Amino acid sequence: MFEVEVKYRVVKHDDIKDRLKALNARFLEHTEEMDIYFNSPWRDFAKTDEALRVRRYGDGTVVLTYKGPRIGDVGKTREELNVTVDDLDNILEILRKLGFKEVAKIIKRRDIYNYENFTIYLDVVDGLGNFVEVETMVNNKELINKATEEVLQLGDKLGLSRDWIERKTYLELMLEKLMQNLK
Amino acid sequence: MFEVEVKYRVVKHDDIKDRLKALNARFLEHTEEMDIYFNSPWRDFAKTDEALRVRRYGDGTVVLTYKGPRIGDVGKTREELNVTVDDLDNILEILRKLGFKEVAKIIKRRDIYNYENFTIYLDVVDGLGNFVEVETMVNNKELINKATEEVLQLGDKLGLSRDWIERKTYLELMLEKLMQNLK
Repeated sequence: MFEVEVKYRVVKHDDIKDRLKALNARFLEHTEEMDIYFNSPWRDFAKTDEALRVRRYGDGTVVLTYKGPRIGDVGKTREELNVTVDDLDNILEILRKLGFKEVAKIIKRRDIYNYENFTIYLDVVDGLGNFVEVETMVNNKELINKATEEVLQLGDKLGLSRDWIERKTYLELMLEKLMQNLK
Repeated sequence: MFEVEVKYRVVKHDDIKDRLKALNARFLEHTEEMDIYFNSPWRDFAKTDEALRVRRYGDGTVVLTYKGPRIGDVGKTREELNVTVDDLDNILEILRKLGFKEVAKIIKRRDIYNYENFTIYLDVVDGLGNFVEVETMVNNKELINKATEEVLQLGDKLGLSRDWIERKTYLELMLEKLMQNLK
């Protein structure tokens, strides 16, 4: 499965919520997620554009995720592999023992909506601000361009300017911020 | 937790089963396990004496395990970290994407017994033969020597000669066999 996703940086979420209502988008849930990102000891994921993440959801579920390099220009399409694991501390410790290094922790609160075959996330990220992600899933690479265009068109409908598109991941934004704080 | 474990190579399991009965050891279950072992791309686990394993139990449960180097001389005591994961194919693919290489697959059928605070495994390993493992768990390193002595004494009671002790792991035995087949 490929995740086709476009992220927008916004000042606030109120207008988008109104537009979602007007479209009869369905509010799914509010979640709070803690993400811990790791880097590899033998290749730099910042350079290879990969990601290894442990996520704890608000309900306590823990998921280990590998994301491959981004494909395409506008979106953030990647191959994604997930497994649910039963113990947060143990998976973190296994990754550390294998040599992976924790590089950042990201805490976000999300309101999640469904509209047709899209998922819309209104995100508040600790230390980074407000964002909207519009996402859909496709089964094979051939469908990525078409799906990206559909995602962008839904963004237009929601009043999201294409100038606000943020191609960087939360991890990259967080690392940039940490670097700036060092200066 | 530290696993204190001594393994014996045996011709057959019949005598040991009789002795287990005589001790009123409790038969717990018969399991069939498939183990897939991985090596790391940036340090050779054969040299560092670590292990990374994905095990599928007979009931379909999948467990990811990291084992640290062996501690002590006779036994095979190691630090062990486990997480249960919900998808065999995905955890295998995540490990491959991270650069880990599959080195061996080991299929074993085990009869598992409990006696006092010990677990006894009567193992038939595809391609390697018959073994008995006597195991107990301790909370801290100070207790390892005492527990190893207790494990050996239980081995004596079961008629397991200390000459039959096999310190190599099934993985090492399997790799040795694969090497011999190449010659």
